[in-house]
Amino acid sequence: MKVAIVGASGAVGQEFLRVLDEQNFPIDELLLFGSERSAGRVYNYRGKDITVQLLREEPEDFKGVDFVFASAGASVSKKYADVITRHGAIMIDNSSAFRMDSDVPLVVPEVNGEDAFNTPRGIIANPNCTTAIMVVALKPINDISPIKRVHVATYQAASGAGQSGMDELVRQTAELVEGKEATVEKFAYQLAYNLIPHIDVFTDNDYTKEEMKMFNETRKIMHAPEMSVSATCVRVPVVRAHSEAVWVETEEPVSVERVREAFEKAEGLVLIDNPAEKKYPMPLDAAGKDPVYAGRLRADLANPCGLTFWLVGDQIKKGAALNAVQIAQYMIRHRR
Amino acid sequence: MKVAIVGASGAVGQEFLRVLDEQNFPIDELLLFGSERSAGRVYNYRGKDITVQLLREEPEDFKGVDFVFASAGASVSKKYADVITRHGAIMIDNSSAFRMDSDVPLVVPEVNGEDAFNTPRGIIANPNCTTAIMVVALKPINDISPIKRVHVATYQAASGAGQSGMDELVRQTAELVEGKEATVEKFAYQLAYNLIPHIDVFTDNDYTKEEMKMFNETRKIMHAPEMSVSATCVRVPVVRAHSEAVWVETEEPVSVERVREAFEKAEGLVLIDNPAEKKYPMPLDAAGKDPVYAGRLRADLANPCGLTFWLVGDQIKKGAALNAVQIAQYMIRHRR
Repeated sequence: MKVAIVGASGAVGQEFLRVLDEQNFPIDELLLFGSERSAGRVYNYRGKDITVQLLREEPEDFKGVDFVFASAGASVSKKYADVITRHGAIMIDNSSAFRMDSDVPLVVPEVNGEDAFNTPRGIIANPNCTTAIMVVALKPINDISPIKRVHVATYQAASGAGQSGMDELVRQTAELVEGKEATVEKFAYQLAYNLIPHIDVFTDNDYTKEEMKMFNETRKIMHAPEMSVSATCVRVPVVRAHSEAVWVETEEPVSVERVREAFEKAEGLVLIDNPAEKKYPMPLDAAGKDPVYAGRLRADLANPCGLTFWLVGDQIKKGAALNAVQIAQYMIRHRR
Repeated sequence: MKVAIVGASGAVGQEFLRVLDEQNFPIDELLLFGSERSAGRVYNYRGKDITVQLLREEPEDFKGVDFVFASAGASVSKKYADVITRHGAIMIDNSSAFRMDSDVPLVVPEVNGEDAFNTPRGIIANPNCTTAIMVVALKPINDISPIKRVHVATYQAASGAGQSGMDELVRQTAELVEGKEATVEKFAYQLAYNLIPHIDVFTDNDYTKEEMKMFNETRKIMHAPEMSVSATCVRVPVVRAHSEAVWVETEEPVSVERVREAFEKAEGLVLIDNPAEKKYPMPLDAAGKDPVYAGRLRADLANPCGLTFWLVGDQIKKGAALNAVQIAQYMIRHRR
């Protein structure tokens, strides 16, 4: 396989290098692309130094490439999609640029891997991090009884704002420990010792774009146009794993025991749920790990058709780079 | 008024001193009580040094006292309630010891102040912090259309575990900045840069006691035996204000505009809700403040009879000391 990473110097770009290695992805040649700021940097992949090339409007640069993992923001993805896919490369795009386009599949392999093959434009979209983490747990429940409603409060790590987001949290924390004022650049307000109930821009209905992604992307991935998701997305002073408190309402009542069994068997999901021994998922434990972790599973005391649980997943792994690589792996494994 | 504070050296005890002063509470004489560890310490109240007396089984110590603010834990409250109330003092107890007793009113003055007068044992219970903060916002909605269901995810500050909880978060943060391992003593796990979905002990239904307090205490305060609350309570690395993402379902649909007006008029509640200008409540801003702050008010996309909003309130103020003092103020103002 000839593989390219676009946005190689970013937090997700760097994670692509690690994930491709960890997953033992079949790579014959790896190309790295980036902005002017990043071009010329050298990264090592399996003992070989690779120089970041400038991303430019030159389709020949992507000739012969099988998979392109893109994570350089929506505007870059839009601008270069034609260049990247011109010669038949499959572009797996981590940005929000194409996610809701009807001719671009939005894929979480554990849920709707088959959709990856329905790609007239050669583009496959990688979902928003919180959605990717959530649908891995919704799928096994939806298979038992269709989910009608989801209420979800997120606890999102600084990593969702990229490397500079993580750097800002760590820097602010050090400044506060040293008795200084926290410097605010990336986030709207100080994040250290604080919570910011605002991720991405606000939309007309007073939900943020991040919250509406959870509404729209969940419907698309789950093939559930009637499923409704009301999300409150909150940035928390955690470095890199996202957490979510989720309530679901199913059409028919589903027992906690049945969901527990389904969670235990579910692909991509690891159940950590032993309250007596203080076992439940926490972001500190999930950072850098592949699976989505579920715990605190119990009946919804406010809804006879309801269940509630707690999810934690690494935002850069399943929330971004890992899911994109898993899409390519699915396509290779189920090649048509 | 002759006033006593039991547990004077604790985080809430110290806040009682500040709140009584700020509220200009009519005090002629102030007595401080504490454990053996705290007895003998001297605190200044309005220019006068007051020595902490040892709390002992001696009813004469509370003779002539009008109000006793107790915050020394449930076991101390249970042990000394008779001693404290023997000569007619009203004991306003911050612990969970008596909250669900049918002959002890559980009071948030903005919601059910009148209940304070129905106190056969001379004991009035102060609710759990998350409940006290939430019911201030539930009340104005419930007055428009009865609330049937509440789903709430909390983001609870270290202060809920007392002064030692706050100290532990700050110490852990400094340790991490210095490249050391975080020392874990008070909380079950490292709290700095982490989230712990576990507050108080687990109960038989896999909810924690903290979560069941939100279920049971809300019903009692709101006089709503049918209202159901499903809560997920999470400790977050914030020093002292609690936040809550709340969804409510009312019997009849209620417009966001109507709730907005009700919130603007509601006692004890301040609406900060201007997304265009990035105005919403945050714990860093609410720390040390009296009101409960509400924001992010919008329709519940997953429920036609639903609304959702974000609350922030100082855990030691409205969540503890302030509410207790407000109960006493209510009783003085509406004296019978």
